[in-house]
Amino acid sequence: MKIGFIGLGNMGAAMARNLIKAGHEVTVFNRTPAKAAPLVEVGAVAAASVAEACKGEAVVTMLADDAALAGVVEGEGGILGTLAKGALHVSCSTVSVALSERLTGAHAAAGQLYVAAPVFGRPDAAAAGDLFVVAAGSAAARAAAEPIFAAIGKQTFVFSDEPAKANLVKLSGNFLITTVIEALGEVLALVGKGGIDKKQYLDFLTSTLFGAPVYRNYGNLIIDTSPRPVGFAAPLGLKDVRLALAAAEELRVPLPLANLVRDRFLTLLATGGEGLDWSAIGRLPGKDAGEAQ
Amino acid sequence: MKIGFIGLGNMGAAMARNLIKAGHEVTVFNRTPAKAAPLVEVGAVAAASVAEACKGEAVVTMLADDAALAGVVEGEGGILGTLAKGALHVSCSTVSVALSERLTGAHAAAGQLYVAAPVFGRPDAAAAGDLFVVAAGSAAARAAAEPIFAAIGKQTFVFSDEPAKANLVKLSGNFLITTVIEALGEVLALVGKGGIDKKQYLDFLTSTLFGAPVYRNYGNLIIDTSPRPVGFAAPLGLKDVRLALAAAEELRVPLPLANLVRDRFLTLLATGGEGLDWSAIGRLPGKDAGEAQ
Amino acid sequence: MKIGFIGLGNMGAAMARNLIKAGHEVTVFNRTPAKAAPLVEVGAVAAASVAEACKGEAVVTMLADDAALAGVVEGEGGILGTLAKGALHVSCSTVSVALSERLTGAHAAAGQLYVAAPVFGRPDAAAAGDLFVVAAGSAAARAAAEPIFAAIGKQTFVFSDEPAKANLVKLSGNFLITTVIEALGEVLALVGKGGIDKKQYLDFLTSTLFGAPVYRNYGNLIIDTSPRPVGFAAPLGLKDVRLALAAAEELRVPLPLANLVRDRFLTLLATGGEGLDWSAIGRLPGKDAGEAQ
Amino acid sequence: MKIGFIGLGNMGAAMARNLIKAGHEVTVFNRTPAKAAPLVEVGAVAAASVAEACKGEAVVTMLADDAALAGVVEGEGGILGTLAKGALHVSCSTVSVALSERLTGAHAAAGQLYVAAPVFGRPDAAAAGDLFVVAAGSAAARAAAEPIFAAIGKQTFVFSDEPAKANLVKLSGNFLITTVIEALGEVLALVGKGGIDKKQYLDFLTSTLFGAPVYRNYGNLIIDTSPRPVGFAAPLGLKDVRLALAAAEELRVPLPLANLVRDRFLTLLATGGEGLDWSAIGRLPGKDAGEAQ
Repeated sequence: MKIGFIGLGNMGAAMARNLIKAGHEVTVFNRTPAKAAPLVEVGAVAAASVAEACKGEAVVTMLADDAALAGVVEGEGGILGTLAKGALHVSCSTVSVALSERLTGAHAAAGQLYVAAPVFGRPDAAAAGDLFVVAAGSAAARAAAEPIFAAIGKQTFVFSDEPAKANLVKLSGNFLITTVIEALGEVLALVGKGGIDKKQYLDFLTSTLFGAPVYRNYGNLIIDTSPRPVGFAAPLGLKDVRLALAAAEELRVPLPLANLVRDRFLTLLATGGEGLDWSAIGRLPGKDAGEAQ
Repeated sequence: MKIGFIGLGNMGAAMARNLIKAGHEVTVFNRTPAKAAPLVEVGAVAAASVAEACKGEAVVTMLADDAALAGVVEGEGGILGTLAKGALHVSCSTVSVALSERLTGAHAAAGQLYVAAPVFGRPDAAAAGDLFVVAAGSAAARAAAEPIFAAIGKQTFVFSDEPAKANLVKLSGNFLITTVIEALGEVLALVGKGGIDKKQYLDFLTSTLFGAPVYRNYGNLIIDTSPRPVGFAAPLGLKDVRLALAAAEELRVPLPLANLVRDRFLTLLATGGEGLDWSAIGRLPGKDAGEAQ
Repeated sequence: MKIGFIGLGNMGAAMARNLIKAGHEVTVFNRTPAKAAPLVEVGAVAAASVAEACKGEAVVTMLADDAALAGVVEGEGGILGTLAKGALHVSCSTVSVALSERLTGAHAAAGQLYVAAPVFGRPDAAAAGDLFVVAAGSAAARAAAEPIFAAIGKQTFVFSDEPAKANLVKLSGNFLITTVIEALGEVLALVGKGGIDKKQYLDFLTSTLFGAPVYRNYGNLIIDTSPRPVGFAAPLGLKDVRLALAAAEELRVPLPLANLVRDRFLTLLATGGEGLDWSAIGRLPGKDAGEAQ
Repeated sequence: MKIGFIGLGNMGAAMARNLIKAGHEVTVFNRTPAKAAPLVEVGAVAAASVAEACKGEAVVTMLADDAALAGVVEGEGGILGTLAKGALHVSCSTVSVALSERLTGAHAAAGQLYVAAPVFGRPDAAAAGDLFVVAAGSAAARAAAEPIFAAIGKQTFVFSDEPAKANLVKLSGNFLITTVIEALGEVLALVGKGGIDKKQYLDFLTSTLFGAPVYRNYGNLIIDTSPRPVGFAAPLGLKDVRLALAAAEELRVPLPLANLVRDRFLTLLATGGEGLDWSAIGRLPGKDAGEAQ
């Protein structure tokens, strides 16, 4: 396929690379053009504009937030105005349900196919092509997107004909991860102050009832306080919880856990944690319990 | 070994049976004597009093709460007064850290060994001898208890020389399970009201990042609202959260999630749920969102 | 003064009437024109458009939310485009801090004066000219608005030269009222279930430490469950808490009480309370405690 | 009347002094005898034991917590065993509903009158005889206690024939005060970070809708961070919230605000605030928002 790819952050660059590796003809675009260079080395064409990335059968977007995606799609020279009729937009970003609903209408009006396909997985999973893809859109759009999903992910979960449902699933999933971080933060603060070795306790948890990677990974991130690269930045974590709460407010669903987690992010950001990985909220329960940080 | 076993509820009866099966000479006692009959059939001796169950090298207790355990240990004709010097008390009940600390001192003063060994697992795991045993106590007490642990559980986790630490681990573990119930209750309410099939969503969760039995089991218990037997009664769930909060208060550790879960239990019990399984709190988020119950 | 008045709801109509009573020449506009008739009877001129209401020295707006105000100010034929240079816009609506900041810039660019002047008080206080006015804006704008404040309110509190500060004060004040509703809802549920007469208890509270009107009024609204007219609609209450939370998120200030109150509103709206007065959230604590509703 | 008075802390000493001033014959007892000296100077007799303080028609207790009161009443040589039949015990301490219920039964069995009469007011109000007395007990007991109430308080509120109801009212009232502290802490953090002068804002609040002393006093205590004497110690605040929560749990009433406040106390005590006035929890919202403390 002839595919444009817009948004070459950690995740996007890895996903674009896998599309190239799968044999697709990929044109890449990033606001900061330097990010394109490593992909050009492995066979991508660098586009000078969004429009140039929209000349193929499909364009994939992987952007930071609603504003970035809306700009690229609805802005002048954007996807809506430049993508061919019948061509496909695969939106992989974690954005609001409301924006996804708006794009659904706009693409339909423009005669373009649109599938929302947010992904689960950290950058290493993206590099390995091991992402979980959550897809929603019309049957035609999903069929057209199949080869793309096959290249970037190891499994695709189809939820609905309405693209925004995939965004809701993604937001709820990220929210669920934050509940694990909060819960681990609380129990580790409790047993730690009670004189129990946290590492040993985490091993116990993950070798009995809580044997999911999410407990192992985030438990270790909470316990091990040494400096580390940011996998997923705290401000993005706040954004995702905010979007989950906004979707829930629209649907009239109270989410007290999401409130709690949102407050943790605010406290983290208000007290010097802007630059940390989002797992850092898991150390706040210990801080409230008087642990040295 | 010659072992007494006190407390023949669903869990205790299954554990006693496994001790018999392992070749131990078991004397059983229950406040309601009828519970002893099925065990006598497979080789147990029925004791007419706590004291009669304390004539061997060890006595195991599996009781509902602090009051029951304190009565059996400290009451007249109780374990403290009747168990031989050097003999062992294995306390498997989920009780407070404070009571366990008190019994530690009392058994030491009486020259008896004491190990706290609460277990993780529902009645079917107890029947299969597949419990996880969390043990704490002096090296001597733990060594003496080894054959008992081997008979009732599939794995033993040793945390400390201080018995009460095992109780803290047990309480924190049950608390962590309730956080999963709450979190699942919230996300299922959200996606359900958003028009997504809950069952399909749960399958997605458990086949990706949340692949632990605790998510699968409690997710299904929340989604499937058909009547069912009570695995673990809601009032006991409230008790365990209360004990976790009491331990945390003593240690000065705020646990906002435990507060939230405790309120869920209070709402459940105040609105007709006294007789339900504790997983029923996971349907309250949906109720607050206007779901028909 | 020659004053335009836009937005003739319960509050706005009463405020416009007091401007007329004070001798000002008032031109009124409302999206639904019928609302203008009673004011025309007492001397107002009915405008056929926003623009017609912008021909004097000042225009006052009292609208339901951000969308309504933004439409009237920034829309075609709106205040920005039609109000004379040097003339004044007094914005009394409860709107977001963000919108008020945007209007500050826009009015400055258009050479117009702008003061944010949200008011505290229910419709009866508006009718009596007894509102509390919270004003912020440049000294020139505030001076120009003095006669308007004098006509609609009994006291004006000036907070800042930046208009948006008045909006923050208003939002925080409404939030504080909701904390009183929640707190009263909880204690009344507690003492009521404890067998104490709620009315007698409220009298005790308000004749001792809690002798503020807000306790008396909302306490009675919670206790007396008979049907009544809506003073301030629940969906508007939710809107105000949402705006307070949005302002707080921007400032990185966690507000756990606002989260709790927001969830109460969501539960109320999800379970049939769309048409109720916002004080109805104060009965949800009793509902969670099993009170018949 | 011939009255014994047990418990000469800040509050108790002031109350005993007012009984003396009113002409009663007062015998005082305190665990630390030195506290009795200033009262002996103004006419009291110092008792060497609880029993000696129980020789009159009535004994008043004003003690720190359940343990202290239970010891004085139920201990050897305690009130139950030494007070004459038909004589009166006036219990002014803030204790649990459960203990008050137990004492109701015990005093009835001993043929003694018992009235629970906790008081509202800080030490200066106690000194001025300006306390609010919340009384519950049999008509006979309340009648007998009238002269005592008249001497220590400026107004008495009678709630029930069951003494424990007065304790519930007291606990709920203290809980309500903490909700004001929390709410003020949150709004002051919000407006303060928003660039508004906190003092001016508090003046606005208390001169409009929130004109109760509790807002003025606690608002000032939160804003003014200079060192000050402890009016009511934080650990006692925690105790009272815990007792309110225990009473509410017994009645199956969720109190999310009480949970929040309890966590504030735990955080305060875990991070160096053991020795502070309970109003210090009102600075924690600002701390979470990144305010220098």
